[in-house]
Amino acid sequence: MNRAEKIFSKAAERGAPDAVVLTGDDVRFYATGFYSTDGHVVIEKDRCILFVDDRYIEAATNDLGGKAGYEVARTDTLKKILKPYKKIAVPLERITLREYIDFNEAGMELADCSQALEQCMAVKDADELAKIEKASAITDEAYLKLLPLIKEGMTENEVAATLEYLMRLGGASGPSFDTIVAFGEGSSVPHHETSQRKLKFGDIVLIDFGCKWGGYCSDCTRTFLFGDDGRHAIFKSMYETVLEAHNLVKRNVVAGMTGRQADAVARDYFKKLDLDKLFTHSLGHGVGVNIHEMPTLSPRGKMVLSDGMIFSDEPGLYLEGEYGIRIEDSVVMENGHLRSLSSTDKGLQIL
Amino acid sequence: MNRAEKIFSKAAERGAPDAVVLTGDDVRFYATGFYSTDGHVVIEKDRCILFVDDRYIEAATNDLGGKAGYEVARTDTLKKILKPYKKIAVPLERITLREYIDFNEAGMELADCSQALEQCMAVKDADELAKIEKASAITDEAYLKLLPLIKEGMTENEVAATLEYLMRLGGASGPSFDTIVAFGEGSSVPHHETSQRKLKFGDIVLIDFGCKWGGYCSDCTRTFLFGDDGRHAIFKSMYETVLEAHNLVKRNVVAGMTGRQADAVARDYFKKLDLDKLFTHSLGHGVGVNIHEMPTLSPRGKMVLSDGMIFSDEPGLYLEGEYGIRIEDSVVMENGHLRSLSSTDKGLQIL
Repeated sequence: MNRAEKIFSKAAERGAPDAVVLTGDDVRFYATGFYSTDGHVVIEKDRCILFVDDRYIEAATNDLGGKAGYEVARTDTLKKILKPYKKIAVPLERITLREYIDFNEAGMELADCSQALEQCMAVKDADELAKIEKASAITDEAYLKLLPLIKEGMTENEVAATLEYLMRLGGASGPSFDTIVAFGEGSSVPHHETSQRKLKFGDIVLIDFGCKWGGYCSDCTRTFLFGDDGRHAIFKSMYETVLEAHNLVKRNVVAGMTGRQADAVARDYFKKLDLDKLFTHSLGHGVGVNIHEMPTLSPRGKMVLSDGMIFSDEPGLYLEGEYGIRIEDSVVMENGHLRSLSSTDKGLQIL
Repeated sequence: MNRAEKIFSKAAERGAPDAVVLTGDDVRFYATGFYSTDGHVVIEKDRCILFVDDRYIEAATNDLGGKAGYEVARTDTLKKILKPYKKIAVPLERITLREYIDFNEAGMELADCSQALEQCMAVKDADELAKIEKASAITDEAYLKLLPLIKEGMTENEVAATLEYLMRLGGASGPSFDTIVAFGEGSSVPHHETSQRKLKFGDIVLIDFGCKWGGYCSDCTRTFLFGDDGRHAIFKSMYETVLEAHNLVKRNVVAGMTGRQADAVARDYFKKLDLDKLFTHSLGHGVGVNIHEMPTLSPRGKMVLSDGMIFSDEPGLYLEGEYGIRIEDSVVMENGHLRSLSSTDKGLQIL
C-alpha cells in the first residue's frame, strides 16, 4: 500500500467516504511525495490526484506522472472532481475554518479523518525511515566536523551558520528548524534565540539542530563544555543525571506504552531525585515530514507507541538564569524496542 | 500606536470587541515581537497579554516585561482572562476549525478580524521597514560575495549552501524560504527544487533567495549566464523584456492602484509582445513576518496599494523544458511611489 492508500484505508475504518481531501503543505507532501506551497490532494479508493496551479504543474507531472496510482491535475478542475461526492473525509483538526465553510457550502457530508491521518503519519514506512536515517547521518557528520572548528570568541550565530553550512554541504536541503546554539546562561532557556553572544572559556554549550533530506527531518541535541574552568562539579553531576534519564528511556520504553507512560520513565526518575521541577518540557515528539508531529511523549500523550514510529528522546534540566542541559537523539521503534538514529557520543565532551 | 493597539483599533471599526485573540505563530510575533511556537495573544483596548507555556515564560518575560502596554502570562491562566468577555474578534480566515469550536463552546460571540489583521500587517511601521531593509542588505551582500565563488562543476545544492552560509554570517537567522538555485533547464520551473545538477559552461542560472533578520523576510531573484556559449540570442532578448516589465512596474505602480492593476502593468506589457502565456505566476506578494502575505499582486488582487506596503516585483517568463527568467526586487511604497530595497545590478551578468 502506498501512503495515499494507507490514509484512505485508515479513514474508511469509520465508514467509507467517497474521497479523502487534504489541504496542508505537509500532508499533501506526505500523501504524494511532491512538495508545493498550494494545492489539494484528493484520494479515492484506487487513485490519488494532486491538484496544483501553473507554478507546479510541470514539476508535479514530471515527478508523479509515471507513479502508479497517482495523477496530477490543475486546481481549476478541482470543483468538477468534487461535485459527484456525497461524503468526504477531511482532517477537521487541521483545516482552516475557511476550508470548512467551503466544503460545507459545496453540500457534502464531512467526516473527520484527523486521527486516521495522524496515525498514518506517526508510523513510518521503509522509504520514510531511510530518509530520516539519511538526514540523521548528515546531522551527525556535520556535528563531528563542527567540533574542531569551535573557537573562543565565536558567536552563537557563527556556530549555527557553520553547522547549517556543513549540513547543507552534506546534502541537506536546509535546517529542519532554526538551529539553537546557546552559550552559558542562554542554555537555561529551552527555546533560546541564537544570538551574537561570544564563546568564553568554561562556557556550557547547548546545540539543538537538525536538517531536512528528501523532505524529512532529523532532530538532535548535544550539551558540552568549552574548556573546564573547574567550577562545573554540579553541572557534571546534573549532566550524568540527564544522560541516565535519556538512556533509561531508550532501554525501558517499549511498544504498547502510551506517550504518557514513556514520558513518565524520565519524569519519574527525575522525581525520585527531586529534580522534576527542572524538567520543564515534554520528553519527546514524533519526527517526520514535520519536526513536531505525533506521537507526543508528554503527561498528555495518549497515542500508543508501536513499531515504525520515530520520535525524539530529549530529557533536560534547566536552572533558570544559570544553565541548562538537554540530550536528545531521535529513535525508531523496531521489534518493540528503541534504536537510536544518532551515533555521536553522548558522554560529556570537554572541548 | 504599537502594533497591538493598531490591530485592536482596526478590528474595532466593525463594532468594538472586548478583546482580539490571536493564535498563529506569525501573528503572535507580529503583535508582540516575541516568537514562540505555541501560545495566545489577547489584546484589550489598553494592554496586550502574551500567554505562553513553561518553555517560553522566562524568555518572554525578559523580552516583554518592561515594554509599555505588554504583559506575559502562563497559558493555564488564559481561560480565566477570557471568561468575562462577551464578544471577541478573531481572524476567522486563519484560525483552525478546532480553535473555532473551542471559542464557540466558551459561549462568546465571535467577530471576524481577518481583514483588519491583513490590513495592519500589510502596512509596515518604521521598525518593520528597518528590519526588512537590514534583511535585504544582508541578502545583497551575500549575493555579491557569492558570484566570484561560483565555479564550473558546483552543484545547485553547493551554490545554495554557500549563499545561505554567507547570509548567516552576515547576521541572518536563516533563509526566509528554501533557496532556489536552478541551472539550465531547471530554471523553466518557477518553483524548481534545488538538486545535485552540476554547473556547465553556458548554463542559465536562476537564484531565488532571501533571509530573515529580526524575524522579518527579504526576497530577491536574479538570473544570469555562467559563460556565454554564443547560443543565447533569444534568451538575451527575453531577459531584456523581463527587465523592462520589472522596471515598468517600479515606475508606473502608484498608491491607489489595486494589486490587480499593478499585476496588469507587467502582464499587459507581455501581452502586447504576445508573451503573456509564458508569465505563469503572479507579479508579486507582500513580504514581512511571512515570506508571502498581503497585498497580492495578481489578477485577483483586490487590496489597494498604499504607503508603507512592502512587496515583491517579480515578473518572469518560462519556456517549458528549456529555461526561465525571473527578476525580483522587494520594493516599499513611499510617498505614493515604489523604492527598491535591493541595490545589486539587474543588467544581464555573464560570469
